[in-house]
Amino acid sequence: MALIVQKYGGTSVGSVERIKNVARRAIKWADAGNQVVVVVSAMSGETNRLIALAREIQPEPDPRELDVVASTGEQVTIGLLAMALKSLGRDARSYTGGQVGVHTDSAFTKARIESIDQQRIRADLEAGRIVVVAGFQGVDAQGNITTLGRGGSDTSGVALAAALGADECQIYTDVDGVYTTDPRVVPEASKLPSITFEEMLEMASLGSKVLQIRSVEFAGKYRVRLRVLSSLTPWDIPLEHEMHSGTLITFEEDQKNMERAVVSGIAFARDEAKITVVGVPDRPGIAYQILSAVGQANIEVDMIVQNQSVDGFTDFSFTVGRNDYARTLSILKSEVQGHIGAKDVIGDPKACKISIVGVGMRSHAGVASTMFRTLSEEGINIQMISTSEIKVSVLIDEKYLELAVRALHRAFDLDAPATPA
Amino acid sequence: MALIVQKYGGTSVGSVERIKNVARRAIKWADAGNQVVVVVSAMSGETNRLIALAREIQPEPDPRELDVVASTGEQVTIGLLAMALKSLGRDARSYTGGQVGVHTDSAFTKARIESIDQQRIRADLEAGRIVVVAGFQGVDAQGNITTLGRGGSDTSGVALAAALGADECQIYTDVDGVYTTDPRVVPEASKLPSITFEEMLEMASLGSKVLQIRSVEFAGKYRVRLRVLSSLTPWDIPLEHEMHSGTLITFEEDQKNMERAVVSGIAFARDEAKITVVGVPDRPGIAYQILSAVGQANIEVDMIVQNQSVDGFTDFSFTVGRNDYARTLSILKSEVQGHIGAKDVIGDPKACKISIVGVGMRSHAGVASTMFRTLSEEGINIQMISTSEIKVSVLIDEKYLELAVRALHRAFDLDAPATPA
Repeated sequence: MALIVQKYGGTSVGSVERIKNVARRAIKWADAGNQVVVVVSAMSGETNRLIALAREIQPEPDPRELDVVASTGEQVTIGLLAMALKSLGRDARSYTGGQVGVHTDSAFTKARIESIDQQRIRADLEAGRIVVVAGFQGVDAQGNITTLGRGGSDTSGVALAAALGADECQIYTDVDGVYTTDPRVVPEASKLPSITFEEMLEMASLGSKVLQIRSVEFAGKYRVRLRVLSSLTPWDIPLEHEMHSGTLITFEEDQKNMERAVVSGIAFARDEAKITVVGVPDRPGIAYQILSAVGQANIEVDMIVQNQSVDGFTDFSFTVGRNDYARTLSILKSEVQGHIGAKDVIGDPKACKISIVGVGMRSHAGVASTMFRTLSEEGINIQMISTSEIKVSVLIDEKYLELAVRALHRAFDLDAPATPA
Repeated sequence: MALIVQKYGGTSVGSVERIKNVARRAIKWADAGNQVVVVVSAMSGETNRLIALAREIQPEPDPRELDVVASTGEQVTIGLLAMALKSLGRDARSYTGGQVGVHTDSAFTKARIESIDQQRIRADLEAGRIVVVAGFQGVDAQGNITTLGRGGSDTSGVALAAALGADECQIYTDVDGVYTTDPRVVPEASKLPSITFEEMLEMASLGSKVLQIRSVEFAGKYRVRLRVLSSLTPWDIPLEHEMHSGTLITFEEDQKNMERAVVSGIAFARDEAKITVVGVPDRPGIAYQILSAVGQANIEVDMIVQNQSVDGFTDFSFTVGRNDYARTLSILKSEVQGHIGAKDVIGDPKACKISIVGVGMRSHAGVASTMFRTLSEEGINIQMISTSEIKVSVLIDEKYLELAVRALHRAFDLDAPATPA
C-alpha cells in the first residue's frame, strides 16, 4: 500500500463540478489500495478577491491580518472537498494548516514551514479516511495564522509528502506535465516524460509556471518523488494511464543510463526590463552599492552582468521585472548615480529572457554557441548573457521572443515528440 | 477604566465603509478610557453564500465540514476590522474562536460554549490593543472548528463578556433598541429604555428579532449587563448620547421601584401552522406518542393545547413552522393516526401568533381578558391560547396579524412614547 499526497491548484477546484471531480479522482487512487492525502488551494479567483477586499480597507494590509483573511480561501475548499468525498460514500476529514500542525516561522504572507505533525493524519489514514489539508497556510509558535505566499500550496503538498514519507507527491495542475517550452508559443512543444530536479529548478525560476520553485527545492532537499499531472484529463481514465501521463521529476543519478537530449527545454520570461549604470568607476564595492539600494526597495534583481573595465570605468547592467522599472531607474538616479560617480543610468523596459536548460550540456561543448548562432541567423541581437552549469540565458528585445523560442526549439531538436505516442 | 465587549452583526459590517465605521466607533469608546473587545459576525450575505455553496456539493452538508466552511465568514471580518483599526492608528489584533480559546462541545452547527480562555485577550488589552474576536465559532476538545448556529455571534459576545467579567456587553444591530412592537407593523411603536431579562426572553422567542434568545439566557445566567444599540447612528455621536440610546436589559430587582407599564410589548410570529389530531382516545401517553414522532423528524413544536375530553375522546393541537406543515401532517397520518386510533388529522397552514409580554401582568389581573376583549371587538377569532407568568399568546388567522397587533398596542397604552423625547 502506497501513501500518496495529491495537490490540486485553484483552477482544479475552481467550481463545484471540479471539486466533485477531484473527489472522484482521489477515490480512484484510494480504491486502488493507496492511502491518500489531498492538499488544495483556494478556488480560482478567491485569493485575489480576498486580497482586493483587504486593500480596500488598508492599501498596504497589515501582514498578520492579511493572512487571517487570505487563509479563508483554502479553508472553504477543504470543507467543500471533504463534503464531496462524503457524498460519494468515502469517509474524509478536512484540516486547516493550524489544525494539522503545519508549523511555520512568523514571516506573515511569506512564511516558511518548519515542521509538520503527523499523528492526526496518520490516525485518519489508518481509519481509512481520505485526509484533506488546506495548502498555502500554517501556524506560528504563538498560534497566529500564517500563509506561505503565492503558490505556497505546492510547497504545502511537498512538505506534507516529506513529513509523511509519502511514496509520491502528485501535483495536479491545468497543464499535463512539463513541456520542452510553452506550447502556446511553439505548437510543436512536447511533454517531457521526466526531468531532473536541477533542470526543473531552472525551468521554474525562468518562468515555466508549472510548479512553484520553492516546492521543487523542497522536494529535491527531502528527496520527495514528485509528479506533475493534469487535473483536466477525465477523472476516470485508467490508473495505469494516469500513472504514466504527466512528468516525473527525478534525481539525476536515476537518469545516468538514460539517453537524454542535450537540452531539455526552452524557458522564457516576458516583462523584463534592463537597467545599465554607465561609466562606473571600477573599484571594489560598486556592485554592492548599486544593488543594495535596489534591494532595500524590495525590488528583485535577476540577471546581473558587469563588463571588463576600460580606462578604469565599467558598465554595470542588471534586469528587474517591468513593473519595477521606473522605480528602479528613479532610485538609481536620485540615490546612487551621484554617490558613486557614474556617468548615467539608462534602461530598456521592453526586454525578455530566453534560456536553454539541460543537464546534458555539462558534457557537451558548443551548446551556447549553437544558441548564439541560431539567434544571429534570425537577426536577433543579444543584449546580455548569463550562464550556469545547466543553463544559458540571454536577454533580447521582447518583440523577438516568439521567433527566438521557435528557432531554438528547432535548433535543439525538441520539435520531435519526446515520448513515443 | 471599564471593560466593554461590543458585538456587531452582519449588517453593521456589511461593507468596507461600515467596517471602517465600526473601527471608528470602537476607537471612540477606547479613547474614552475603556478596554474594548469587539466581536463580529460575517459580512451580511456571506454566511448564506457559503452555505449555498456547501449545499451545491452536498444537499445536506456534513455538519463538521459545514462548520469549516461557514466559519470563514467571520474570519474574513475580523482580519478586515483589525486592518481598519490599524489604519486608523490603533493597535489591534484579531482572533478566531479557536485561537482565542472559545471551547465548545462537538455539536457541529449548533455547538454550545463551555469555557473561554482569558489570558491572550487580557494580555492584548493590557498592551493597549483593541481585541477583535470572530463571533459564531469555537473549537471542540479535539481541535475541530465548531459554530454556534445562526445568530450565535450574540452569544459569543455575551459569553466573552461573562468570561472577562466585562462591565457591559453592547450588542450593536440595525435597530436602535427594543420596541414595544415591530415599528413596520405599528408606526406608533416606541423604544423601551429598559426591559427585564424575562421579558426579553419572551419577546425574543416570540419573534422580536433583536437579540438571539440564547445570548439573552446566557446574559441572565451570568448576570452580564446587556445593552442593545444601533450601529446605524453616526459613529461620532457624543459618548453620553450613545450611552443613553438603545435599550438596557435589566434584572427585575433593579426595577422594583420603577413605575412600569403592565404590558411591555407585543410580539408576534408569522408563518405558523396549526395541526389538530381529532378524536384521540383520552388515555395516558397520547401526547407523548404524537409529539415524539414529530420530534424525531427534527420538527420544532411551539404552542401545544389539549382540551378537556368529551366521551373519552379529546382533540390535540399544536403549532409548527409553516415550512414543516406538510411534513408534519404526513408523518402524523402515516405513522401516528392509525396507531393511536385518532379519527383524523387536520390543519391550517395560515396562522400567526400574537403575544403580550410584561412582568407587570404578574400583579395585575384582567390582562388576558383585555386582550381577548380587544380581539373580539375587532371580530378576530382566537384559535389557540397559551399563557405563562409574564405572557399571553394567541393563535389567529394570519390575515388579521397587523390589525390585531395595532389594536392590542393601543389597548395596552403602548402608543404613547415610553420615554420622554
